[in-house]
Order: sequence, then C-alpha cells, then structure tokens
Amino acid sequence: MAATEATKAADEAYDVIVLGAGPTGENLADRAHAAGLSAVVVESELVGGECSYWACMPSKALLRPVTARSEARRVPGLKDAADVALDAPAVLAHRDAFTSYWKDDGQVRWLDSLGIDLVRGQGRLAGPRRVVVDGGRVLTARHAVAVCTGSRAVLPGVPGLAEARPWTSRDATSAKSVPGRLVVVGGGVVGVEMATAWRALGASVTLLVRGDGLLPRMEPFAGHLVAESLAEAGVFLRTGVEVREVRREAPGGPVTVLLDSGDEIVADELLIATGRAPRTEDIGLDTVGLAPGSWLDVDDSCRVTGVTGGWLYGVGDVNHRALLTHQGKYQARIAGAAIAARARGVPILESDRWGAHAATADTLAVPQVVFSDPEAASVGLTAAAAEKAGYRTRVVDQDLASVAGASLYADGYRGRARMVVDLDREVLLGATFVGAGVGELLHSATVAVAGEVPIERLWHAVPSYPTISEVWLRLLEAYRG
Amino acid sequence: MAATEATKAADEAYDVIVLGAGPTGENLADRAHAAGLSAVVVESELVGGECSYWACMPSKALLRPVTARSEARRVPGLKDAADVALDAPAVLAHRDAFTSYWKDDGQVRWLDSLGIDLVRGQGRLAGPRRVVVDGGRVLTARHAVAVCTGSRAVLPGVPGLAEARPWTSRDATSAKSVPGRLVVVGGGVVGVEMATAWRALGASVTLLVRGDGLLPRMEPFAGHLVAESLAEAGVFLRTGVEVREVRREAPGGPVTVLLDSGDEIVADELLIATGRAPRTEDIGLDTVGLAPGSWLDVDDSCRVTGVTGGWLYGVGDVNHRALLTHQGKYQARIAGAAIAARARGVPILESDRWGAHAATADTLAVPQVVFSDPEAASVGLTAAAAEKAGYRTRVVDQDLASVAGASLYADGYRGRARMVVDLDREVLLGATFVGAGVGELLHSATVAVAGEVPIERLWHAVPSYPTISEVWLRLLEAYRG
Repeated sequence: MAATEATKAADEAYDVIVLGAGPTGENLADRAHAAGLSAVVVESELVGGECSYWACMPSKALLRPVTARSEARRVPGLKDAADVALDAPAVLAHRDAFTSYWKDDGQVRWLDSLGIDLVRGQGRLAGPRRVVVDGGRVLTARHAVAVCTGSRAVLPGVPGLAEARPWTSRDATSAKSVPGRLVVVGGGVVGVEMATAWRALGASVTLLVRGDGLLPRMEPFAGHLVAESLAEAGVFLRTGVEVREVRREAPGGPVTVLLDSGDEIVADELLIATGRAPRTEDIGLDTVGLAPGSWLDVDDSCRVTGVTGGWLYGVGDVNHRALLTHQGKYQARIAGAAIAARARGVPILESDRWGAHAATADTLAVPQVVFSDPEAASVGLTAAAAEKAGYRTRVVDQDLASVAGASLYADGYRGRARMVVDLDREVLLGATFVGAGVGELLHSATVAVAGEVPIERLWHAVPSYPTISEVWLRLLEAYRG
Repeated sequence: MAATEATKAADEAYDVIVLGAGPTGENLADRAHAAGLSAVVVESELVGGECSYWACMPSKALLRPVTARSEARRVPGLKDAADVALDAPAVLAHRDAFTSYWKDDGQVRWLDSLGIDLVRGQGRLAGPRRVVVDGGRVLTARHAVAVCTGSRAVLPGVPGLAEARPWTSRDATSAKSVPGRLVVVGGGVVGVEMATAWRALGASVTLLVRGDGLLPRMEPFAGHLVAESLAEAGVFLRTGVEVREVRREAPGGPVTVLLDSGDEIVADELLIATGRAPRTEDIGLDTVGLAPGSWLDVDDSCRVTGVTGGWLYGVGDVNHRALLTHQGKYQARIAGAAIAARARGVPILESDRWGAHAATADTLAVPQVVFSDPEAASVGLTAAAAEKAGYRTRVVDQDLASVAGASLYADGYRGRARMVVDLDREVLLGATFVGAGVGELLHSATVAVAGEVPIERLWHAVPSYPTISEVWLRLLEAYRG
C-alpha cells in the first residue's frame, strides 16, 4: 500500500523538512517559514511532542498545587486551612486538561494557521535532502532537513526490568491514578520532580539514587536542600544504591526491587528515570553516513558536522547540547535563522559568538528550574564546572533565609544562593538559587550571565525591597567585601 | 538641663554624621565606616526607621498571606481548603513579630557590632559640619553630614480631617485590630496595598481616588488590573472623587467622609495616603542657608547643591529622587562611596554615569513591586515617560495569560507585560509586569535596563520553561516581528 502510494505520488519539494513536531520542530518550522521558506513537518506521534504531553506541561501541572499548598502552609492565617491533603482527582483532571487530553488538534491548527504542512508518519532519511514517510510519500528539501526528534527514556540493563513494565517519564506524568507505593530510580530532575508530585498526591515514595546526592548537575547544596525537604515530606531516600534485579510476577501486580545491598522493596509501581537516548535509531541516518541511534554532533548553528553539502541539522535533544525544551526552542530560533541566512547565500561566521546564528547560550547560559519544593534554579556554570573549564573564579554564597523578602515569603524559609564570578572579566559565569519562590528569580541571573553584565554595573541593578531578589545585593556586597 | 550638658561636653568630632537611622542612614554609616571613616548616627525615634516598623516590613507581612491564599485558591486540589477567611489575629501577631514589636534592640546591636556610634535625640544642624542633639550634645563632622531623615505622610487641608485623627501609613501598618469599615483615600502604592490587606483581613473597604485610576506612576494597565481585582475582592472603588469634609463626633467613634458629589460615607477608620513630605522641617536647615521643610536638591552623588564646602548630603526620601527603601539604600551605598572618595582627596567626575559615585539608577532604573493581588512590578521608564523624555521608542505588550508558565501558575491567570525599547540604542528603557508571581520576575528587567543589555543579546537569555519568565521570549519575538 505504501509502496503503491510512493509510485503514484511525485516527490514533494520543500525548502525545509523538519522531522519531529515537538516544540523544537514547531519553532524551527515557524522560523524558517517566517523567513520566507516553505516548510513541512513530519511527525509519527502527537504534534506538540514530549513537552506538551509527557514532560513539562503535565509535570508542572502536577507540581504547581504542591508548591502552592506548601507556601500557603507557611504563612500565618492560613496554616490550618492549607494543612490538608491535595484533592488528587482534581489535580489529575487539571493535568489532563493541560495536556489537551493527549490530543493535538490545537497544535495542528496552529501549524495550519502558519501555513506549515504536516505529514503524519515515520519520516526516514533516504540519502541527501530526501525523506520518505512510512516508506511511501517522498519529500525533498531544497535547503535543509532538520532532525528534531528529541529523546526518550532509557531503561538500564537490569535483569527483569523490561519485563516488569516499569514507568518511564511518560507514564509518571500521565498516570490516571495515584499508586499506593512508588519506587523512583534516579535522582535527576525527573526523579526528584516525580517523587515530589506523587508523594504530595498521596503515594508512599521511595527514591533510589546511585550517587551520593540529588540533582548532580547543579551545585551540591541544591541536592542537599531538596533531599532534606523530600525527607520531611515523607519520601524515603536511599543514596549510593544500585538496583540489581526487578521482579513483577503478574501484570498489574506488585513489583519487587532488589538492591545490591540485598534489600528488597515491594511497590505498586516503579519509575525509571536514569537517562535519555536520542530518538535517531529509525530515521535513516545510515543513508547519509551517520550511525543510527547516535547523538548528532553539530556546530553552533546546529548543523550536523561531517555531512557533505551541509544540509542536515540536528536541533533540540538529539544534539545532546542541553536536553531542555527551552534550549531546543532556542536552538530552533538560531538554526532557523541560520538555515534562512544560508538559503539567501549569506555566509555564517564560525566566530559568531552570541550572534544571530550561534546557540552560544547552550554552552554558557543554560537555565533550568526544578519545580521541586523548594525550587532549585540555576544558570551557567557551577563552581566546579567553571574551575574545570579553567576560569579563575570566586564563589560567593548567601543564606537566603537571612534576606528579608525571603523570611516574609514563608515561615522558616530555607534556601541558598551562589554566584560564580569570572575574576578576569568580572562577570558572572553562573548562579544557583534554591528556595521557595526562586523560579521566577532565575531569569535575572540568566540576563546577567548571557548579557555578560559587569559586576560593577550589577551594583546599579537595585533589587526591589522586600523581595527575595534582594539576595543579589547580599551576593554583590559579599563579593565587593 | 540640655544647655548645661552642652556646656559640660566638649564637641565630639566624627568623619561623618548621619541624621536618621532608617535603612538609608544605617547603610550610609556602614559604607562610610567600611571605608575607614568614623561615623555617628543620630536618631530621634526607632533605629531601623519607617521601613522596619511602619512600611515595607509590616505591610509585606500583612500582604504575603493574602497572596499565598489567593494563589492556593487558584490551583486544583486546594481550592475548597484555601477558600477561607484569613485568621486575622494570627496575621497581625506575625506582623508584630516582623516589626520586632516596635523595639529596635536588634538594630542597635547591629550598629554597635559595626563600631558605629548612636546618639538618640533630635539632631539639628548648627551651621556648617555641626550638629546639636536635643539642644545639648554637639557633634562635628570632618568630612560630611548626611541627612537621611526620610519622609512622612502629609494630610491634605480638608476641613475636619486633622481633628478626625485619621490613619496615615503608620497607623495602617501597625493597627492592632481590623476595623469594621475602612475608607482609604489615595490610589498610590500605600492606598492600594492597605486596601488589599485590610479587605482580606475582613474589613469593609472603600477606596477613594482623586484621579481616574490606581497606581498612576505605573503603566495604565497596572492600575486597571489591580482595580479589577480589588473590585472582585469586594473593595468599593470610587475614582474621580474629592473629599470635601471629614467629621468625627467622638474619639473612637465613627467617621463621616463627605465627598464633592455630596455623598457621605460612614466608616470606623479613615486612612489618608495621598502624599509625603520630607522630614526636614526641624533639622536646622536654616542654619546652612536652606529652607526648613524643603526637599533637598542633590547631585548624582547625593551631595546637596549650593552648600559651600560640599559637606552636606541628602540621601533617601529627603532628596525626592525615588521614595523607596531600596533606592535609599542604593543612594547610601553610592553616597557613602563618594564621601569616602572625597575624604581621600579622590576627585569625583560629574560624568560618572553608572559609575561608583553616581546614583544613575535613580533616574533610569528604579524598580518597584506593589504587593497587591495581582502584583504590579515595574522598572525604568513607562511608555509615556520615555516619550516625554524624547526617546524614539517602541512599546511591546504581551498578555501574560497566554504564557504557559503563567497559565500553570494559577487558574484563570490574568496579567500583562510591557517593555519599552529605545529604538536608537536597541536597549530596554523600562518594563512592567502585572500578575501573580511577577514580583521576583522584575529583577530580570532591572538587570536588563540597568545593564543596558542590547536586545540582540537578550535573545540569548533563554527563559526556563515553563515559567512566567517565558513572557520575555514573547516580548522579544513580538519586537523582532
């Protein structure tokens, strides 16, 4: 049937073919189209991608009530009223609404309104500038093919694990009811956020971590503060453990997790959140000389290196630069502009640092907010990363509880802030904030880091009193001594 | 008695004399002292000033529970639980704790720990570099006298008003019980915040405004959104009205407010929040050729203009540059550095824009957060102010409700953002955010405005998804078209 269609249909030519209709693919098509190029997007699942249905949107929808309750419990006049269990069915129903009930009509309408074509099916490269969809329809690209297929959760090779049908991030964000007992494996963002959410919704949660702490990509105090808070919420955290074997006797029945210590934990569900792999195994990479299933190596314009003719781009998770929705969208804006510039014959300079065609922030100013309780937010380099990269740095820490705006925000406020300064240029390399209400504070640091605003000018960026942002003044005062 | 003391005591010499121990005076003394100068602070009331006891601290302590409740009511799973009246005695008790029960021991200890002398009493200039306290003790300043006496509420000349003993901001922030009926006159920050707080604590509140809207110094949409929300909270807002007369028959009895329309409003308390005056009427300004009771005209280092020898500084509210605690503290840091530099004989350039000795942010980057519900936050110039100042501008607006992070933050999110761009330099002149959770977002704009970060670089300051800060992306996309 597909073969017949392929025979019938003439090749369809576009300026840009986008594989994957997640936020990255959508934005890339949008930017290309806005620059006057024709674009088609190929998607085998839902238009809107992982973020809309199984990541950012549902996880934040599950977590926001947890934060709001936590904050209400920590102001006078409301403590007793807010000291109640969350109404889990109401929260889950809200989450369902925020994922549009896992239907993509709205997003399809949006693409349509822009004049971007959508082809449903599995798109596979078939040599240079050529994509075949479901083995039939053939698309050709005058200027570029952009791989925006994202990433998926990876299950480690633990005996019995695959057979036990564990949750991955998709199941954890879309589950229809609260499990009685949940074991979470992995102390990164997904593990921490889902332990936070499901515990608050009533599950008994055990969090198993191979390393010695949570959120290992952030400053160590982030993991410490979040671990302390999770423990107080009743999450049983075990660090330094390995899962040796998993057993589930019957589908839907209890699952037994065996640890290297010999301990066994019995639960109703098991979430594996230990890593991601690129969704590049079945997109025809071999037809253009690349290894299926590999991360795509790209330059700062997100063009895949080593492909003759320079027509292939890898944008978003697939390039492994920064596996975050907002960075994928950022790369899409940059790559879209680069594709459009090259289509017009405009040369793109390799030295275009912070320019219109270089995703410089990917390496120097990636922001991330973990919607745990407390929130953990960071941008740029950690102290350790800056040192490793050879910068001459000074690290300044500040207890957030001593900031008036924080102590007014929540009784018994606990939090911490750190800035990492490049002593040679006197600009910020990175900043981290952990505490209630810091999620929106992060962008101030992102502007400072990406803007390379000199410390002496930050001295004139006055924080409004009494907000938590006054921590900036304390950090700068400490730096200036 | 005072005269005797004066006769007995030898003049006491300091490098710097500070009149007023509010946050501005404290910070000025601290900066001067840190630079190696000796400093003494003269205070007739509580060390810590208006902010600590009758403004920022108590008002935010009253308002934070209002915000936390509002937000809890607007997430699923918690609506019913949070839809309760605030426990007013608990909130008031909390407020009392945050003002240290109107005792200044802690702040006195802090001054003491720094090695800064404190003299209690009314300090009055007695000619150049000379201050007499309560007509007795004589202090002389080798380098500078800094007037940091702040401002006080002004009662308009309405018949019967003074006799009715109305509340001013001091009473409104320190009242020990909730009035049954409260009339608030004035639609600025104090009027709006106190109407919000006392309404949420159970008072029936009428807000009377002479102009046609609230928060007249901000973008018009700020006042509109806050007015809409106050009305929904049950505050009776009347704009375009004048108070013609006020009557209170008996102390503690009801007060009648007569409007120019002929209407009469009867209430239990009346808050007048219509303006401020400098606290300079009784500090001996006449002895140095200045008019008692006037705002002090200063240069960018906060040195009073037209005083021979350049030894007099006016820092904080008294100079009328920006009547906000954080700006007073900022000026104190700048003026403290300027005093120290001049004491060392270092010349200070008039052209020191954004430099160490110029409070440039006072004119270009003043941030303010109104802790209303929703919060209103702004920095820099409004569209109207920028136009009036002759900039060639472009104004970009964005509905905050359409930002994913905002819609996840609260059901039925309402809010708006605006940025004002200087088209000639392509930098931000100002930004305004109105909505739940924007208070901590403001500092991102403050860094952008004070840092003069080019728009094309802001394109690389990626907002973390899904936060409210993603509005930055929408604003920049709209600007770039």
